[in-house]
Amino acid sequence: MITVVNMSQGPGKAKRGIPSKIENFNEWYPFIVEASDLVDKRYPIKGMDVWRPYGWKTMRLIDSLTHDEMEKTNHEEVNFPLLIPENLLDKENALVARLKRAREEGIDPDELRDEEEEGGFKKEVYWVKHAGENELDIPMFLRPTSETAMYTMFPLWIRSHKDLPLKIYQMVNTFRYETKQTRSFIRVREIHFFEAHTAHIDEEDASRQIAEDLEIVDRLMHKLCLPIIKAKRPVWDTFPGAWYTIGIDAVMPNGRTLQVASCHHYRDQWAKAFDITYENLEAKQQYCHQTTYGMSERLLGAVVGMHGDDNGLIMPPAIAPFQVVICPMIKKNSEVDTVGAAEELAETLRNGGLRVKVDSRDIRAGQKYYDWEIKGVPLRLDLGPRDIAQGTVFAARRTGGKEPLPMEGIVENCRNVLSEISDELRNRSSMHMQDVIQQLPEFVQNEGKWEMKGEIVDGKIYQMAFDGSDAHAEVIERLTGLTFLGDATEEFDTEINCHMSGKPTKRKVILAKTY
Amino acid sequence: MITVVNMSQGPGKAKRGIPSKIENFNEWYPFIVEASDLVDKRYPIKGMDVWRPYGWKTMRLIDSLTHDEMEKTNHEEVNFPLLIPENLLDKENALVARLKRAREEGIDPDELRDEEEEGGFKKEVYWVKHAGENELDIPMFLRPTSETAMYTMFPLWIRSHKDLPLKIYQMVNTFRYETKQTRSFIRVREIHFFEAHTAHIDEEDASRQIAEDLEIVDRLMHKLCLPIIKAKRPVWDTFPGAWYTIGIDAVMPNGRTLQVASCHHYRDQWAKAFDITYENLEAKQQYCHQTTYGMSERLLGAVVGMHGDDNGLIMPPAIAPFQVVICPMIKKNSEVDTVGAAEELAETLRNGGLRVKVDSRDIRAGQKYYDWEIKGVPLRLDLGPRDIAQGTVFAARRTGGKEPLPMEGIVENCRNVLSEISDELRNRSSMHMQDVIQQLPEFVQNEGKWEMKGEIVDGKIYQMAFDGSDAHAEVIERLTGLTFLGDATEEFDTEINCHMSGKPTKRKVILAKTY
Repeated sequence: MITVVNMSQGPGKAKRGIPSKIENFNEWYPFIVEASDLVDKRYPIKGMDVWRPYGWKTMRLIDSLTHDEMEKTNHEEVNFPLLIPENLLDKENALVARLKRAREEGIDPDELRDEEEEGGFKKEVYWVKHAGENELDIPMFLRPTSETAMYTMFPLWIRSHKDLPLKIYQMVNTFRYETKQTRSFIRVREIHFFEAHTAHIDEEDASRQIAEDLEIVDRLMHKLCLPIIKAKRPVWDTFPGAWYTIGIDAVMPNGRTLQVASCHHYRDQWAKAFDITYENLEAKQQYCHQTTYGMSERLLGAVVGMHGDDNGLIMPPAIAPFQVVICPMIKKNSEVDTVGAAEELAETLRNGGLRVKVDSRDIRAGQKYYDWEIKGVPLRLDLGPRDIAQGTVFAARRTGGKEPLPMEGIVENCRNVLSEISDELRNRSSMHMQDVIQQLPEFVQNEGKWEMKGEIVDGKIYQMAFDGSDAHAEVIERLTGLTFLGDATEEFDTEINCHMSGKPTKRKVILAKTY
Repeated sequence: MITVVNMSQGPGKAKRGIPSKIENFNEWYPFIVEASDLVDKRYPIKGMDVWRPYGWKTMRLIDSLTHDEMEKTNHEEVNFPLLIPENLLDKENALVARLKRAREEGIDPDELRDEEEEGGFKKEVYWVKHAGENELDIPMFLRPTSETAMYTMFPLWIRSHKDLPLKIYQMVNTFRYETKQTRSFIRVREIHFFEAHTAHIDEEDASRQIAEDLEIVDRLMHKLCLPIIKAKRPVWDTFPGAWYTIGIDAVMPNGRTLQVASCHHYRDQWAKAFDITYENLEAKQQYCHQTTYGMSERLLGAVVGMHGDDNGLIMPPAIAPFQVVICPMIKKNSEVDTVGAAEELAETLRNGGLRVKVDSRDIRAGQKYYDWEIKGVPLRLDLGPRDIAQGTVFAARRTGGKEPLPMEGIVENCRNVLSEISDELRNRSSMHMQDVIQQLPEFVQNEGKWEMKGEIVDGKIYQMAFDGSDAHAEVIERLTGLTFLGDATEEFDTEINCHMSGKPTKRKVILAKTY
């Protein structure tokens, strides 16, 4: 049985044209991103949506949480050009060549599989080869990510150990020529992107940076009310030129994982390719060790997918463009000025630091509720003459539940309710995560051929104790149809025998269907 | 004589490698934008600089003033895709064709000169015709501005008069394939850009929008301490498809004007091309009237150029990344913890809403002063044991002048000094503007040929009473080597005879050398 979370209605009860999230997530998701005014997909390029005000505001609030974290951790914001001349890729290609040589000197060739295939992004970038009526001498491409652009400048900025660590970031749009099916926020061709790039004196200091990045991820995900899986990607899924990659995956309601962030430890591989050195205390030139940390608008995709229900979005209060909507009851010939009272209440809440909207449209209350439910405003306050007389306001939580709130101490009262709504969202999504993660069935060899002793259930994520070879991993992926997310950052408490190699291990690997 | 403003040193006394601003502005400007760490021009594409943290922070502070103004005036932020399919230009081309027809029906052909030449930006855009290894069916270009992209969506968003006015804006990067010499912030190929687009029920409401835009410009320029010229551009310099264009020009120290913003009233010309209609109260379809308002990183270029001196930048307090830098005096074996006191003071000022940096590097005070002067931090506070004992801090204004400030009420004291520094910058730049604007010499006809009775002085801007024809204007531009900025928004108080036509007029036109 698939456990349903975040559903205020039973299955099948699609409301006012909204597809049922539980029965048909693949229709619900694209419907809701447009119906809630996050984006408009009718722009005439597939995979390039128009961000509408509500969607852009939400994304900018997510960005501002990231800005805050960057400031706290002494990262500085830069902004690099969009275009990268093709000849800068020479250095990146040299990096790949170096890694090839390393293989010839005895490293497992599997480790280089992706590097060779990637060919420096050439197959998935948009090219600018013409300007005005001219053909350019050197073709340029739209950045798919900024290693090449940034590391061209790093040698000019880093001279001595005093310049380290260098910690910079930018929020820019990146471009990928996606050939797979596009989905708003999840798989798009113009990506709203965050990338932090750091340079350090040694491997250890770079490792500390990765640890800091993972702490930032935790704090951000707490605010987005999203549980995540952090997994050290298998070698074949490691970013080209990286020593290792940690992928951060959110879980969608259909059990598919969505990589929302990643951290890469480059050691000195890129530094060697781009000649990024510093003079150490002994006046010797040393290569820097580098890391990157990336996130994207997929964070919003995960929020939409995980928290929404059949009535629309549910916005975590930390990123809700409107945390509170006030709906004054509008009655003709009433002596009580509910609209005035609503405006006054809004002012009080705004002074208390809350983001508030007053909806004083003269339409049916039901229509108002529908509009704000689909947009996922976490807290609605209804204000009628009787509420005013009683010194209360009627609070409806988007996560369910209604109650009168005393007007006395209303800022604090609203803060508390919003905090409870955040907790409720965290509970629901954690329960979903717990429910979704299962033990992988065992494998047995039958006449030399591997077989799986059980079935893979749609919508589940699997974990297993694993200490086998890459060949074993390939067998598992083939038999299960799942993808190795990699090694969970938290191991098993006790040793368990690996199904494939028979070796006892605490190593916990995670497998899933991925976006 | 050219009056020198913003100079704390006499001409010729270039300091530590900084070129003299007054003697050689064309060397001073590119030197200072890099020396102050605003940008790095060594990125391997000409006209595409890397924004360094200090420059980007400044630009983002300018942006945030704009965001505030947009919020106050009920504009909503959107974000459109960068790429525009070539076939969307068909409508823009149709607009040009329509204007051609208008000419055939009797409108002065000069009015259409630019429209024909522009050819929908085709000659100045970057083209994307390839992606991965494929050639695209429909070529796309990087937006030079977003009319075409946005007005493709407007008909989907505007149904009835209730949807109007539609007021949206975005801050994005735009691209122009510049063939002229590039200059940081002033003439670049990737432009940090602001654009507001509005749609209205009629011409009158659109005109009110232009008036609002000009008020926003005034408030922003006050904060940037920049005097400006607002001029209704002559017809031949009007944006294609616009009814009229108002250019907002700042004046650089060399007397050249720099267009930092512009507003366009489109009437219903674009609406007719893109079929942007609404249903009015009588259930009739009507064309919208539209406006745009654009600004760019040129605002920062004007700030750099106008306020700086031979010691570096001078940042207007409203956009200074650090409004105050505190330099504790560091003496070995001193019993007084000046660094601790500086940190404490910084905390007090930050809590008061000021942006503060503490420079506790153990280097010569002179080096510190130099570093913060070149970056243009408006207020430096030196803190030594004697200051601490006296309950004061020693304040050095970047605009000149030193004084002890009482620690009691230090937030208010700093605010007052910063406010005086802003006033001083406004004074200096207004004086420069007043000094630079001259009356244009008269013109006389000699044997049927026009001659100028006087000389054009380099570094000056000219005004004249003008009520002549476009042919007269052409004669003036040819004889003076100046460009018509257009009609000043403020006319002459009394009627003056136009030199060319002899007609009395209050119309005041401005002419200048432009960037």
